[in-house]
Amino acid sequence: MSKKDVVLAIDIGGTNTVAGVVDREGTILSRFSMPTIGTRPFDDFMKRFLNHWESLTKDSFSDFALIGIGAGAPNANFYNGRIENPPNLKWGVVPFVEEFTRQFQVPVLITNDANAAALGEKLFGVAKGREHFIEVTLGTGLGSGIVSNGQVVYGHDGAAGELGHIIVRPNGRVCGCGNRGCLETYASATGLVRTMLELLSEDNQPSDLREVPPSQMTSRMVYDAAKKGDPLARQAFEITADILGQGLATAVALFSPDLIVLFGGLAKAADLLVKPAREAMNQYCFGPFKNKVDIQVSTLPESDAAILGSAALIWNHLAGN
Amino acid sequence: MSKKDVVLAIDIGGTNTVAGVVDREGTILSRFSMPTIGTRPFDDFMKRFLNHWESLTKDSFSDFALIGIGAGAPNANFYNGRIENPPNLKWGVVPFVEEFTRQFQVPVLITNDANAAALGEKLFGVAKGREHFIEVTLGTGLGSGIVSNGQVVYGHDGAAGELGHIIVRPNGRVCGCGNRGCLETYASATGLVRTMLELLSEDNQPSDLREVPPSQMTSRMVYDAAKKGDPLARQAFEITADILGQGLATAVALFSPDLIVLFGGLAKAADLLVKPAREAMNQYCFGPFKNKVDIQVSTLPESDAAILGSAALIWNHLAGN
Repeated sequence: MSKKDVVLAIDIGGTNTVAGVVDREGTILSRFSMPTIGTRPFDDFMKRFLNHWESLTKDSFSDFALIGIGAGAPNANFYNGRIENPPNLKWGVVPFVEEFTRQFQVPVLITNDANAAALGEKLFGVAKGREHFIEVTLGTGLGSGIVSNGQVVYGHDGAAGELGHIIVRPNGRVCGCGNRGCLETYASATGLVRTMLELLSEDNQPSDLREVPPSQMTSRMVYDAAKKGDPLARQAFEITADILGQGLATAVALFSPDLIVLFGGLAKAADLLVKPAREAMNQYCFGPFKNKVDIQVSTLPESDAAILGSAALIWNHLAGN
Repeated sequence: MSKKDVVLAIDIGGTNTVAGVVDREGTILSRFSMPTIGTRPFDDFMKRFLNHWESLTKDSFSDFALIGIGAGAPNANFYNGRIENPPNLKWGVVPFVEEFTRQFQVPVLITNDANAAALGEKLFGVAKGREHFIEVTLGTGLGSGIVSNGQVVYGHDGAAGELGHIIVRPNGRVCGCGNRGCLETYASATGLVRTMLELLSEDNQPSDLREVPPSQMTSRMVYDAAKKGDPLARQAFEITADILGQGLATAVALFSPDLIVLFGGLAKAADLLVKPAREAMNQYCFGPFKNKVDIQVSTLPESDAAILGSAALIWNHLAGN
């Protein structure tokens, strides 16, 4: 019997690294997870990764042929195959593709997690077959992967697609990147919380969230309060959706996609966020684009999306794209 | 003797249409100009165009072989070859490529003027050989053509690249497009004049421009005043450069180009506009992009640039790109 072609898909996060064996249809056949431990050198990561891989494949891998590896990681550079000084991993510059190619002797590709997510959506998700779309991940920050003409927009150095860091409010909120008024300081889980805190300071309507210390307030709490009718929490969502819509309209003016895919915790707030963001986007859009861009929420399970993105990166390459 | 391959390059403007015979090296071998007259139907335009073409080629064209036609026009759609309801031409929808193919029996392509300008810069100008750059035309409005991965970014419908209509000041100035706060209401010749008028209203410093009726004030007057040391005119340039820098930083965050080419009258204001815009762009840029993007002013003569852009569109295609 001939072996089944599979790829190894890896998602390196600040806290955990997950890996899966994925077939051409996007079925995750097996997987493992391990702590990334970014405080230790990359060699330590590699050693532990190979141990996990050996355990995984020892018994059950005889039916499969590994034909490629795809990975997503913060600050990963598609062009040179390196992970370059990610803020939350003390690895410096890691020649990831080189190391994994040497160990596994198959084609290896890496990109940042947002780009991988977009490719996952294109191969296995709601953007299947789409040539012009933007995937926006609304998490702690705002990540984006942009597909134009069927290809991920990498730019000259592999660093393109930073929708979270376009300035939507000149002299606005301080961003972790050092600038002010970046989209992700408003349109993200932390942005929503910051807006809630701002409203609590500006307005004196009652709100249960006045009992929560700022450091402990979460987007989930704002969501629950809004669902219960808390007027300030509802207003926080309105403002977040409005600014998200403005940011999406900017991306639309430049790329003219026919689809925007929203992913991440906040994207589940259909009525409170997605619907008003769609309206705001159409309001802020340049005329010819109004009401022509679809917004859909990703249907990939959050636990699988990162692995499927990394898998798509390498399957896409193996298919000659 | 074998004939020399040439293309016909056409630039359709709101007022005038210019056309030229251009060789592979970008030499304009001959040209003509005629009024567009957008109040009459397209058939009238076509008839007059063919008359001009006949006069041009009657005597001197025996050495040349016409192998293609490229055109730039407002609201031109690269994908379907149509000019679609341009605001300043009462033509409705014109199947331009179809009409010209029928008349000339050679490959015909059309795109909007901003995209053509970018291609002209890539083939014949300061962006020669560049794969990731943005051309920004600072005229009455702000036009942009974006090249990513060596290709013009057209988007799903051919309408991408509208940097002039990203919103940089929420609830800001009314734009001709119906929105508020679009980049071109600040960073353009008319934007500069509007900023000057705003400063004249806000500040009470003396200025020669207080003698000029708003309807007659031009960007040239603001430039001349600034050069003579008028403090408000200088401030108008500072504000314009700052907002232009913010807009460019937005484009950089999304496309990560290694070059921005500025074109048009305002781009000649090196010290007053280009230098401070570069500084502002680097200030507003997301960290990884700071000081990595070159800004150059186009060196193509303004009288030739549109023709060369249209020529580049078709030469690029004939070369298999």
